[in-house]
Amino acid sequence: MPKTKIDPWDFHDIEDYRNLFSEFGIGSFEKFRSKLSMNRYIRRGIIFGHRDFDRIMDAIENKKPFVMMTGLMPSGRFHFGHKMVADQIVFYQKMGADIFVCSADIEAYCVRGISLEIAREIAINEYLVNYVALGLNLNKTNFWFQSNYVVPYYRFRDMLSKRVTLNELKGIYGDISPGKIISVLTQSADILHPQLEEFGGPKPTIVPVGADQDPHIRLTRDLAIRFQSEFRLMQPSATYHKFMRGLQGGKMSSSDPKSYIALSDKPKGAIKKIMNAKTGGRATVDEQRDMGGVPERCTVYDLLFYHLIDNDKELMNIYEECKSGELICGECKAKCVDIMIKFLDKHQKRMEKAKTLVNEYLSKNGYN
Amino acid sequence: MPKTKIDPWDFHDIEDYRNLFSEFGIGSFEKFRSKLSMNRYIRRGIIFGHRDFDRIMDAIENKKPFVMMTGLMPSGRFHFGHKMVADQIVFYQKMGADIFVCSADIEAYCVRGISLEIAREIAINEYLVNYVALGLNLNKTNFWFQSNYVVPYYRFRDMLSKRVTLNELKGIYGDISPGKIISVLTQSADILHPQLEEFGGPKPTIVPVGADQDPHIRLTRDLAIRFQSEFRLMQPSATYHKFMRGLQGGKMSSSDPKSYIALSDKPKGAIKKIMNAKTGGRATVDEQRDMGGVPERCTVYDLLFYHLIDNDKELMNIYEECKSGELICGECKAKCVDIMIKFLDKHQKRMEKAKTLVNEYLSKNGYN
Repeated sequence: MPKTKIDPWDFHDIEDYRNLFSEFGIGSFEKFRSKLSMNRYIRRGIIFGHRDFDRIMDAIENKKPFVMMTGLMPSGRFHFGHKMVADQIVFYQKMGADIFVCSADIEAYCVRGISLEIAREIAINEYLVNYVALGLNLNKTNFWFQSNYVVPYYRFRDMLSKRVTLNELKGIYGDISPGKIISVLTQSADILHPQLEEFGGPKPTIVPVGADQDPHIRLTRDLAIRFQSEFRLMQPSATYHKFMRGLQGGKMSSSDPKSYIALSDKPKGAIKKIMNAKTGGRATVDEQRDMGGVPERCTVYDLLFYHLIDNDKELMNIYEECKSGELICGECKAKCVDIMIKFLDKHQKRMEKAKTLVNEYLSKNGYN
Repeated sequence: MPKTKIDPWDFHDIEDYRNLFSEFGIGSFEKFRSKLSMNRYIRRGIIFGHRDFDRIMDAIENKKPFVMMTGLMPSGRFHFGHKMVADQIVFYQKMGADIFVCSADIEAYCVRGISLEIAREIAINEYLVNYVALGLNLNKTNFWFQSNYVVPYYRFRDMLSKRVTLNELKGIYGDISPGKIISVLTQSADILHPQLEEFGGPKPTIVPVGADQDPHIRLTRDLAIRFQSEFRLMQPSATYHKFMRGLQGGKMSSSDPKSYIALSDKPKGAIKKIMNAKTGGRATVDEQRDMGGVPERCTVYDLLFYHLIDNDKELMNIYEECKSGELICGECKAKCVDIMIKFLDKHQKRMEKAKTLVNEYLSKNGYN
């Protein structure tokens, strides 16, 4: 039996990802996989790489304090691509992490031209509501808007500016503007500030990112070291995950509604998107029965693999039935639609409750 | 009688300064001189130029709200060069301005590598104490550290970054670094933020500066306009003053103690500096009796002209006696020493009281 049959998840562009290990020193996540196999993304190798995760594993195993930090980009609807990070936040909260989540509204303003008011609406109604519906305890979460936080954070960010050169930023980010510089420094402050004395001092910090974010992780890790004379900062740890493709096969993008299913999509819209999704099917049914499908190329399989089927055996069956030509795209889509409708229905009911919780949280913290 | 005899103050490098009128559109301050002749710097043409001062004059005359904003660079001792700005702060406070003074500690950190702790000490013990000793009512002053202020200020500054390009900053400031960019944006936020809604909305704002600061004033005035869709901001007004030369004839600089007399200098040190100061004297006493001195080149005359002699007639006498050869440098220095010692004695007694007031202010505002 070929390797891909034994391990139906270890494939998406894996060759590209593996280059990251040798080229940039990202470590393989393999050694943590069995210890954290309760997490679907880890178990299935979607989280495939890391930097300094050992100290996070150590904190989890020994119940020592650690931080999980992530940011949300308030620029569109919350979809299944975003769910992957949301699930990781909830996972780390259960593992004992002190959760730090920021709304990157300054970045949205400076780099994407989104007003702070709109960014705020999106952060609250799309992100926070979905996070809570997915299981986040907001009352045990440090949530902030980059535009509306605390002085030690802004002070620290300004100090970061002294430790980086323009050429370095150009090297990392290409064309750079004052707005982008503010945005980049803010991102680093987002990641590092939970270690300031005002926030309890140095501690392991895990930042789950897509591999495309590694340059920023490297910069921030460097910045942590460059501050040794002024602050004791541990270099932040990171995990790297693969990306779900968009439903048309290209990138999943908030600006292309056909490429994603939002978690607040109406059933009818979601069904239509699944029925139109790009699969790994063959030109004709006969050909597919004969040659089998290619789940590696199938965006419907992506949905099942990343989100909709948690049971490995069940997923494996689908994978093998597809490969063997037994399962045809139409049936598979119908199955996916079925699970999706149930998921959305349950989730959207949770969203209603979550809205109340989010509003209570915002009131309690003076945001309303 | 030549023009310089009639107007003994309208000379220092005036040709250079006049170029500013035509080249950069700085207006002559002449038309406000008689209305504000109670101010020595205005009366003597030390404040020689302006942008949009009419709206400040209007606010003064009609008792309408206006703001005076200035910053201090906490990087050395408070000397007679700094006194010129301090006197202007006190003057505008008496004229009814709402005073905004910032300690540019982020600029000192980012651009000059001075730690925030040291910058804080200097701002308090050198600047605030001298300001209060010179007549500033700190309790009616909005004072802040750039590193420790309020969220609307930081938010606004981040938003400024979106309205300026890197090439523009390079054009104005030459080599630019992330630290300098933060510093420049912070300066603009310093000047403009008193007009935010959180601070009572748009109002005339006067920023007294040396002519070398005009590029920054121009940028900030441009930024005010570029924000029209988001904030209503009036373009800030500015006045431009001449600089006192250092006691050696070159630049007066905090990093060269021979170039200045600090307001906390011991009498002995001050006397020595005056005795060693560069004058407009001739090679020999005979020559000077014969040809007369050149007060235009004399740094001792500068001290009298800018600070030590408020009575115009008294100053005029010294000027004419010097020109005629009647007053020789030795006698003149002795006269200057005499006035200086009296000034320092009185001022340093006031500084002792001021220290108490500054400490009370800092405690009351949670800075201690």
